[in-house]
Amino acid sequence: MKYSSTFSSSPCLLFIFLMIFFNSATATRFNIPRLSPIGGTILQELSGIVLQSHHSEHYKTFYYKQTLDHFNYRPESYSTFRQRYVINFKYWGGANASAPILAYLGAEAPLDGDIAGIGFLTDNAVRFNALLVYIEHRYYGKSIPFGSREEALKNASTLGYFNSAQAIADYAEILIHVKKQYHAEDSPVIVVGGSYGGMLASFFRLKYPHVALGALASSAPILYFDDITPHDGYFSIVTKDFREASETCYQTIRDSWSEIDKVASQLDGLSTLSKKFKTCNPLETTSELKNYLENIYASAAQYNRPPRYPVTVVCGGIDGEAFGSDILSKIFAGVFAYYGGNRSCYVNAPTNLSETTVGWSWQTCSEMVIPIGIENNTMFQADPFVLSEFINKCRAFYGVSPRPHWVTTYYGGHDIKLILQRFGSNIIFSNGLRDPYSSGGVLENISDSIVAVHTVNGSHCLDILPANKSSDPDWLVKQRKIEVEIIEGWIAKYYSDLKALN
Amino acid sequence: MKYSSTFSSSPCLLFIFLMIFFNSATATRFNIPRLSPIGGTILQELSGIVLQSHHSEHYKTFYYKQTLDHFNYRPESYSTFRQRYVINFKYWGGANASAPILAYLGAEAPLDGDIAGIGFLTDNAVRFNALLVYIEHRYYGKSIPFGSREEALKNASTLGYFNSAQAIADYAEILIHVKKQYHAEDSPVIVVGGSYGGMLASFFRLKYPHVALGALASSAPILYFDDITPHDGYFSIVTKDFREASETCYQTIRDSWSEIDKVASQLDGLSTLSKKFKTCNPLETTSELKNYLENIYASAAQYNRPPRYPVTVVCGGIDGEAFGSDILSKIFAGVFAYYGGNRSCYVNAPTNLSETTVGWSWQTCSEMVIPIGIENNTMFQADPFVLSEFINKCRAFYGVSPRPHWVTTYYGGHDIKLILQRFGSNIIFSNGLRDPYSSGGVLENISDSIVAVHTVNGSHCLDILPANKSSDPDWLVKQRKIEVEIIEGWIAKYYSDLKALN
Repeated sequence: MKYSSTFSSSPCLLFIFLMIFFNSATATRFNIPRLSPIGGTILQELSGIVLQSHHSEHYKTFYYKQTLDHFNYRPESYSTFRQRYVINFKYWGGANASAPILAYLGAEAPLDGDIAGIGFLTDNAVRFNALLVYIEHRYYGKSIPFGSREEALKNASTLGYFNSAQAIADYAEILIHVKKQYHAEDSPVIVVGGSYGGMLASFFRLKYPHVALGALASSAPILYFDDITPHDGYFSIVTKDFREASETCYQTIRDSWSEIDKVASQLDGLSTLSKKFKTCNPLETTSELKNYLENIYASAAQYNRPPRYPVTVVCGGIDGEAFGSDILSKIFAGVFAYYGGNRSCYVNAPTNLSETTVGWSWQTCSEMVIPIGIENNTMFQADPFVLSEFINKCRAFYGVSPRPHWVTTYYGGHDIKLILQRFGSNIIFSNGLRDPYSSGGVLENISDSIVAVHTVNGSHCLDILPANKSSDPDWLVKQRKIEVEIIEGWIAKYYSDLKALN
Repeated sequence: MKYSSTFSSSPCLLFIFLMIFFNSATATRFNIPRLSPIGGTILQELSGIVLQSHHSEHYKTFYYKQTLDHFNYRPESYSTFRQRYVINFKYWGGANASAPILAYLGAEAPLDGDIAGIGFLTDNAVRFNALLVYIEHRYYGKSIPFGSREEALKNASTLGYFNSAQAIADYAEILIHVKKQYHAEDSPVIVVGGSYGGMLASFFRLKYPHVALGALASSAPILYFDDITPHDGYFSIVTKDFREASETCYQTIRDSWSEIDKVASQLDGLSTLSKKFKTCNPLETTSELKNYLENIYASAAQYNRPPRYPVTVVCGGIDGEAFGSDILSKIFAGVFAYYGGNRSCYVNAPTNLSETTVGWSWQTCSEMVIPIGIENNTMFQADPFVLSEFINKCRAFYGVSPRPHWVTTYYGGHDIKLILQRFGSNIIFSNGLRDPYSSGGVLENISDSIVAVHTVNGSHCLDILPANKSSDPDWLVKQRKIEVEIIEGWIAKYYSDLKALN
């Protein structure tokens, strides 16, 4: 298994689409997906921010001696590994004031990009007088058990400890440690996460209410498990996003798949397609191309955010191609536009697998079985999620089977309103309805304090990205304001409870 | 390691006192305690009930193919074992009526005694039209992983999976399975447990609110961890119980320890003591005798219930000894009375270790570190709980160290009112204040629906034992009535929520 240990991915941006790959009838050569193109474009876009706001002198890196297995007492369970967390002390009002702690719960990527990438913490640090804590997820970045990434990722025997229950137990231990370390036992902790990390944030509040007072769970598709959400939810929204941007663009994409099949069926068809799409290497199957395109459309929709709005960009390319051009030329023009024309070749460029790709592949093949399928009501060719096939592929690759019902067994999800309207408190589920993952999100208030805050035009994790005064639309500014005020309300109530009990 | 695989212990009755043994300066030969005498006497007392109300035709035994390790994906984690559960269908109102499920969560004993022993289920089955489900705790009874008890208990490598987090995950899986099996997805589940099982019940409601609507946690010392509860809480209440029963009895016991030391220091002192206490084998240390006596007093206090009231019985023996008798004759008279005089010898009778003794020894040496110590303000000789000593003993015996802070990390406990007053719902913490474990119980209401129901005169788990119309005092009848009405309130609210959402 190859992977890149140096690639540093940005937070919340890489909730990638392994399902597409695993799901497609013809699996890729590696049977696990290559890096999603989303990484490249988005990272470019964010790199300026990263460089600009990373004032490293305010951030201190620590390593916690973390227990390998919290739920077992075998001698091996007692192994430890160094887990990275980063603290910014600059804005903290201190333990005497019981000033709050904003804690970012790392997701399926190294922590490096999070300090600049999770604007919600830095943008609100002053307002909350908050200690900022960023914790890296086990098996990513510098938080690797078994001494090396190679050992850790070797097989199911070492990967077995790599799951969400262990990860949130890690977070509990570290947050308890940090509170003790700085005599901040009375400081309320608000956990923040996006996408998979948003799921972790909401799960953390539910499982560890004694550690976190509340959670901001951004774009967390906690209902995209079992059969709670229709499997086609994701690609239905991708389709809707494109259709809303441009009916002709949507039509062109919808017609393109059979056109690809038609060309491929001709003499030297794959070669023709390879030339048409300027592929880096000759195409071996049409699936290579189709997966690539699906992935671009999905990424464009998921991260369809200001100021660039990738769906508009792609459709601009497709619709802008000269009148009378053939369908595939239009499609390629969309790809070209998406990448801003700065690539020498497309589709199957040789690339290292990112940590996220490798790690998330394991996570989805063991615990996080998110059944994304494509049905006929989309602009894509149907490619339904078939659980048995998925299980077989995972078992073939890792030697162990996924546990597709474990997430709902451990965390719930079915009948969520019935269950949580009288249980739990202080969770914000934020979503942007243009984010395909919002189809598995919580979009209605569950109770007075387990609430949904969504925007019609928002995209994946948009609310927790850095604010940009010059380009953020009003609806986004308003969404963030609502979230901050809700959290302020939780903290105010907590202080009044604390006072009443002391 | 020896153990008895045939001994069947009664539910909720055997939350035994390993701490006494582990804690005492001179550990026993086996370094883990022998069977607590409480087992014998209580079982005799209950045996009539067991025979009388066990109408086996209404109970059906099932075995669930249970996952060995819910929180790991190593190939070994996928091993399964047969977990026993028992269902009584007779009183159930059925799935169409969404009739409730009362589920008893097994504790540190085989399930066999629970069907008759947990009266709360059978006594209220008609009233609730309830399906009764009893689930055995992993590593007890017939729910043994690794093929045999011998394998399962061999060492820390096989014992490692034996802990509360795995156990309540087992319960979640089985309850979800049962609901599915009988199309009872809408049936509210109320989990019931006593002592350690009571802790599990409250933890279960907190961790799996989507599986159980509410919990009756009887005599659950969930606050007897870390430093939340003073270490001397347990033996302070034992002392108080005896003092309230008889000041002279209390004085005699208080004076007896130095008297034992005095006699022991004389020529042939241990031999004199052996004769005095009719020991089954010659005493090797005074600790043998002292531990035995401490254990009788603790058991008498913990299970000081109608109609027998063992504390009164013991003090009757002590105080009833002829005027002018020496202290140790009085003490022996107390022992004699406690056992009803039907033993041929005392103190160190050869006995097999019960499953409970063996299992709970592991549980307290790994996860359930309950720091019970004896301080000077009691009728006992001081014997404080020293964590480092405890850890060393456990490590020497099992090869792995306890994790004394894990229970509060995973389940909470510190500042419980502050944490839970706005989080969670539907838990009854019931206690009898004469139960020494009530010192670690929740004795005040936390919120409208997380409530404490205690009785001044109650003992350990008394409320969930079978009702006895002829001998139950009014305060006990009232306590049970309150509990049932609270649970009816939860269920009524649930039905109205269910209706409103459908």
